[in-house]
Amino acid sequence: MSEDNIEVGIVMGSDSDLPVMEDAAEFLDEVGVSYEMTVVSAHRTPERLYDYAREAVERGLKVIIAGAGGAAHLPGMMAAVTELPVIGVPVKTSTLSGKDSLLSIVQMPGGVPVATVAIDGAKNAAILAVQILGTADQKARQKIRDYKDSMREEVLNTAEKMERGDLQ
Amino acid sequence: MSEDNIEVGIVMGSDSDLPVMEDAAEFLDEVGVSYEMTVVSAHRTPERLYDYAREAVERGLKVIIAGAGGAAHLPGMMAAVTELPVIGVPVKTSTLSGKDSLLSIVQMPGGVPVATVAIDGAKNAAILAVQILGTADQKARQKIRDYKDSMREEVLNTAEKMERGDLQ
Amino acid sequence: MSEDNIEVGIVMGSDSDLPVMEDAAEFLDEVGVSYEMTVVSAHRTPERLYDYAREAVERGLKVIIAGAGGAAHLPGMMAAVTELPVIGVPVKTSTLSGKDSLLSIVQMPGGVPVATVAIDGAKNAAILAVQILGTADQKARQKIRDYKDSMREEVLNTAEKMERGDLQ
Amino acid sequence: MSEDNIEVGIVMGSDSDLPVMEDAAEFLDEVGVSYEMTVVSAHRTPERLYDYAREAVERGLKVIIAGAGGAAHLPGMMAAVTELPVIGVPVKTSTLSGKDSLLSIVQMPGGVPVATVAIDGAKNAAILAVQILGTADQKARQKIRDYKDSMREEVLNTAEKMERGDLQ
Amino acid sequence: MSEDNIEVGIVMGSDSDLPVMEDAAEFLDEVGVSYEMTVVSAHRTPERLYDYAREAVERGLKVIIAGAGGAAHLPGMMAAVTELPVIGVPVKTSTLSGKDSLLSIVQMPGGVPVATVAIDGAKNAAILAVQILGTADQKARQKIRDYKDSMREEVLNTAEKMERGDLQ
Amino acid sequence: MSEDNIEVGIVMGSDSDLPVMEDAAEFLDEVGVSYEMTVVSAHRTPERLYDYAREAVERGLKVIIAGAGGAAHLPGMMAAVTELPVIGVPVKTSTLSGKDSLLSIVQMPGGVPVATVAIDGAKNAAILAVQILGTADQKARQKIRDYKDSMREEVLNTAEKMERGDLQ
Amino acid sequence: MSEDNIEVGIVMGSDSDLPVMEDAAEFLDEVGVSYEMTVVSAHRTPERLYDYAREAVERGLKVIIAGAGGAAHLPGMMAAVTELPVIGVPVKTSTLSGKDSLLSIVQMPGGVPVATVAIDGAKNAAILAVQILGTADQKARQKIRDYKDSMREEVLNTAEKMERGDLQ
Amino acid sequence: MSEDNIEVGIVMGSDSDLPVMEDAAEFLDEVGVSYEMTVVSAHRTPERLYDYAREAVERGLKVIIAGAGGAAHLPGMMAAVTELPVIGVPVKTSTLSGKDSLLSIVQMPGGVPVATVAIDGAKNAAILAVQILGTADQKARQKIRDYKDSMREEVLNTAEKMERGDLQ
Repeated sequence: MSEDNIEVGIVMGSDSDLPVMEDAAEFLDEVGVSYEMTVVSAHRTPERLYDYAREAVERGLKVIIAGAGGAAHLPGMMAAVTELPVIGVPVKTSTLSGKDSLLSIVQMPGGVPVATVAIDGAKNAAILAVQILGTADQKARQKIRDYKDSMREEVLNTAEKMERGDLQ
Repeated sequence: MSEDNIEVGIVMGSDSDLPVMEDAAEFLDEVGVSYEMTVVSAHRTPERLYDYAREAVERGLKVIIAGAGGAAHLPGMMAAVTELPVIGVPVKTSTLSGKDSLLSIVQMPGGVPVATVAIDGAKNAAILAVQILGTADQKARQKIRDYKDSMREEVLNTAEKMERGDLQ
Repeated sequence: MSEDNIEVGIVMGSDSDLPVMEDAAEFLDEVGVSYEMTVVSAHRTPERLYDYAREAVERGLKVIIAGAGGAAHLPGMMAAVTELPVIGVPVKTSTLSGKDSLLSIVQMPGGVPVATVAIDGAKNAAILAVQILGTADQKARQKIRDYKDSMREEVLNTAEKMERGDLQ
Repeated sequence: MSEDNIEVGIVMGSDSDLPVMEDAAEFLDEVGVSYEMTVVSAHRTPERLYDYAREAVERGLKVIIAGAGGAAHLPGMMAAVTELPVIGVPVKTSTLSGKDSLLSIVQMPGGVPVATVAIDGAKNAAILAVQILGTADQKARQKIRDYKDSMREEVLNTAEKMERGDLQ
Repeated sequence: MSEDNIEVGIVMGSDSDLPVMEDAAEFLDEVGVSYEMTVVSAHRTPERLYDYAREAVERGLKVIIAGAGGAAHLPGMMAAVTELPVIGVPVKTSTLSGKDSLLSIVQMPGGVPVATVAIDGAKNAAILAVQILGTADQKARQKIRDYKDSMREEVLNTAEKMERGDLQ
Repeated sequence: MSEDNIEVGIVMGSDSDLPVMEDAAEFLDEVGVSYEMTVVSAHRTPERLYDYAREAVERGLKVIIAGAGGAAHLPGMMAAVTELPVIGVPVKTSTLSGKDSLLSIVQMPGGVPVATVAIDGAKNAAILAVQILGTADQKARQKIRDYKDSMREEVLNTAEKMERGDLQ
Repeated sequence: MSEDNIEVGIVMGSDSDLPVMEDAAEFLDEVGVSYEMTVVSAHRTPERLYDYAREAVERGLKVIIAGAGGAAHLPGMMAAVTELPVIGVPVKTSTLSGKDSLLSIVQMPGGVPVATVAIDGAKNAAILAVQILGTADQKARQKIRDYKDSMREEVLNTAEKMERGDLQ
Repeated sequence: MSEDNIEVGIVMGSDSDLPVMEDAAEFLDEVGVSYEMTVVSAHRTPERLYDYAREAVERGLKVIIAGAGGAAHLPGMMAAVTELPVIGVPVKTSTLSGKDSLLSIVQMPGGVPVATVAIDGAKNAAILAVQILGTADQKARQKIRDYKDSMREEVLNTAEKMERGDLQ
């Protein structure tokens, strides 16, 4: 957790969440938003969770993306400690497919929201983080606009191919 | 949709969502963040939805809070059109208790996130909106800090009463 | 979207839905009902969705089949814009097996129905489309009758084989 | 089951479904589409179900709306026997809130679709029936257009009131 | 459907249910109870379903085992027509894992029960059929007793092996 | 547990289940099948459960109806001990509406079936019990036939009233 | 948090959980096990949670009972910090009936268990706490024995009344 | 079931549960707590279940860990008979992924708790067992402390690697 001027912190409950969470890192790389990525376990390193959340503001972070699975307490506990917006990524589980993760993250009590995205939706968490930065930063906003344009182009291309019968 | 300098737009699919959604307005009133509140139905006024979403940026809005129930398409369609962050509030339904609303809002495909809060969690949507504003606005951030302080005080007072046996 | 006299429009949210949705095309091919098939993403190409839905009637379409997964907004938003009957196909998802798709499509609010079929039920969507055409078109109705006859024959043959012990 | 020229048959599994199903009748009355309404129990009067479904075409019906709750077999069995399009209305149940009804109706096997609407969505079933008639009948189609217009007006009025602060 | 003195009829909605349903046949073979097995599709051969159910009593059947998946109407419709006890086997589905099958079979309305067993529980359906025969037939009852003894023996053997450490 | 020649034993986990379970008694009274009714708690009186199940056969019972809610172990444990057919009634719970009861009763492992009916379906449990007796007892079978006739009559009467418009 | 020799700590996320959680206190009062009861909110007073959990051992507590609803993080976070056994009580919620609470509490990752009881099962949490104390304390064990005896007596009395027909 | 001074009994409903349940044994081996492991089927060997539970106390066991799947009655019935704390492990099922097991174990009625852990959470059951022993045994408590330390170390190491970019 060294670099200066890091805007987004990506944390996950376990390195087994990395295959999901690196989608967030990839998007931020793509659009050139600085981030850091590490493991913070609510259950196995509760002090580290507190420290990370408490220091986040003074370290200059603006948004935290937290991914976890099962009884996923990491996003909610981050949100309990910091005043930064916390985006929660429910990670799919082998037994309940992430329904447990989703409910553990989204059903927060009044007072402490977690901005929850879809199960395994780490890429969308990153997009949302950039949208949040974009509320005050024209460059970030433009990145979202560009990304939306590129998605549209991609769909139009695919549509054209399907209409020509080139996809079946 | 008249006032200048409005930062948060609160929209809902129907006026039957108002008893839930006015919790958002109330919190914003409390902390002094400007907002507007209106009805935009994805299904009954699709053009209005497009127009609202398309004009949101130029009208100066920074965050949109969208509440809807059942096959709740309003938050996701708002997010499809605008580059602003959209916070989705799944409204409880009489048949499936809002589980349908929750899944219809949170399970967005890659590319278009909705920052989803708990079922009927309109107050948390407002807090999240202020947290988002707070990423660039020290006054907004301070409001969240103050609110967290007041919540803590309240819990400590309640705890003290319960320990004294004054609550049963 | 070129051919004349096309009666059924098949649209899907992404080309990843094609393996499911081509069952619809296949049935329409089988019974000789004209159709077109393309990608229209509610979330990545919202204008295209509006345009497709608005022009559907004047282009002569009579029924729209729309398939999508997750927070599946395509069928409902189509139905919001057009006065044609819209048949929704909930596509199975990797995390929630299509339960999210089903609820996002079927739980439409009063005023805007989507004729929902089973998860991954694209073939049934096509049959339903022909049944709808058949309400005014004797040839289409006869196709359904013939199809029902062929299904019955097939079951009777299978039953006979099983009774003879030729299936285990 | 007497009148001539009836276009829509509304059937329900029990008269306890009437408070839900009469929403369908009401809409059809409103737009002036002829219908009949009766009780046909798949489980208590299976022969009647067969007879109703078999005679529906020759009696001139064009669409059947079937509502039932729990292990709701009426819509699917209707669809098994007749070649007419069948619209299924899952009725809310006291134990599982209609989730059982929904799955029993929508999850039909390949070959026999039921056009399923939301739990307790009888009004939408009627709208869908008129949309189906509208595929060949300009007057029916116009009724849907008019209804969509009236819904839009209603939302715009409500929106205006909410913006003026007249609703809280 | 040829043999005399057949006591148990095993029917299934499709031959794709055979891998599950043959567990029932296997148990009946094992204990020497006569049965027949065939395909009866509620949706594709509704008349056959009626005929099978109506003739079951006079053909001498005493119990019917009916397996089906998804919107599984076969067991309930059998039970609607015949006065014999009907045992329903919910077959696992690829999308909802048989939860749809289970609810479609077990949630029958007052008046028409289906004796439902576990998802894919065809063997238990056969055991239950023999228990039912055993209410009036000492030989059938003894078969259940013997089977229970053999299960107990098997568990005791396995337990002994595990305690000796021979299983890991 | 006194009377001679009792054919059906109705047991429930708690007297709070009585309002549900007395529907079973009522039906048996109506058709004149002898029964006894008592409380046997799997969890609070496990010995009593064993004793009841073990003595059931020699006491002449032919079918056991067992109702319970939540982690409902009574029907399954009865079935574990006795060779009689056991019918399980999942009783609706205040938290999970009986979904827990249903799964705890129906999902029995291979070897030990429970004939499960709908949540709160005690009446159907009684009908099933009489159907089971009817496999060897013409009088019991006739009672089911008569009951089916009366249900049909009732539906036809209701249908006629609804068609005359006498029900709205 | 004053008294000496307190063995059981009862904590809850909010005083709105008190009507549920006081069942735990009542049982402990009944059997004479010392306890304390207070509010500790994981989300609104995270430091207090840490402090409570860290000091629990040295203050002499032996078991912690933690009740919470929704995204219920209190039991799991307690268990993360302390080495004492933590019993989690999922409190029923108005939207999802406590299914969210249950999954948020029970689905803990490997390494940090929470001993979860039924939704709203605070009394059982207290019984479990006494059973835990009873592993080393004959008096506590005897209390459980006595309680089991009293439950059995109660069931036998109720059974007798029901058999006499004194309950309907 | 031979060794002296065994503190933890691990039982499972079937040897098919062994791959899950041996995680419990492994943890107890690791920390040096004595245990025994065997098969006790509630449904196929109900007497054995009674005997095991009844003799557990006098044999010196202090905690019972019981794992089972589907309509999982073993943990609850153990808890019904013994006064020892019983830890329930819901085993994942092929049809409902262990949701049935979870509800069958955790939703116990008032009076008879089962300390339920996560689906397939056998390791956590063992940790909880040692925590329970630790309420009176300093050595056991120290083992939990040491284990918590080792988990923390492991997370910190992984975090460091991820921060260095050594994990992607």
